[in-house]
Amino acid sequence: MSGLDPAIAARLKRNPDGLVAAVAQQRGTGEVLMMAWMDDEALHRTLATRRGTYYSRSRQQYWIKGETSGHTQYVHEVRLDCDGDTILLVVDQEGAACHTGDHTCFDADVLLEAEG
Amino acid sequence: MSGLDPAIAARLKRNPDGLVAAVAQQRGTGEVLMMAWMDDEALHRTLATRRGTYYSRSRQQYWIKGETSGHTQYVHEVRLDCDGDTILLVVDQEGAACHTGDHTCFDADVLLEAEG
Repeated sequence: MSGLDPAIAARLKRNPDGLVAAVAQQRGTGEVLMMAWMDDEALHRTLATRRGTYYSRSRQQYWIKGETSGHTQYVHEVRLDCDGDTILLVVDQEGAACHTGDHTCFDADVLLEAEG
Repeated sequence: MSGLDPAIAARLKRNPDGLVAAVAQQRGTGEVLMMAWMDDEALHRTLATRRGTYYSRSRQQYWIKGETSGHTQYVHEVRLDCDGDTILLVVDQEGAACHTGDHTCFDADVLLEAEG
């Protein structure tokens, strides 16, 4: 049982693991920083604290972005998409968003370049 | 067997259904438009044609964004994230990105408002 508002919980369409995708975007610049996962409780904590809080599938535990690295996310705005399976977080990212040290998780591997 | 470059295929970390998440973002404004799914073949077709092409889990078939609505996506840039399970597409979206007619799939349901 999570503390999530039941009116919000009713609108979520979770995957078989009980998770929704969460995309974090930098306020102002619009950069897409990272994608991670949330269950109801992670979403509840994010809404209640305005600190980006996710659920780790590999470690099976909650993690607050930046708790160990200091690279915290202050959450300005949270939106749910039309089919209820993806959350968009508009955040102020402190330092690097990616655990590799890159500014975003999408910096390192370009599969298709912009045309000249 | 998809036509995807084996060097790219080797870097993908697919979910149990063989899919990676794909986030589409408007070029220039940075707006996050939608989230959908791709398998290797959908990614191959997107890279080869520069038209946003996804895999529908419910219909179990490929769909080219805008093929019926006319709301096509011209793909400028494609990036893979650090852990290989999420694609970022930088696109020019023609018309509404959301099937509801909204400009983006994240327009309708605000879970947490920006502070004053």
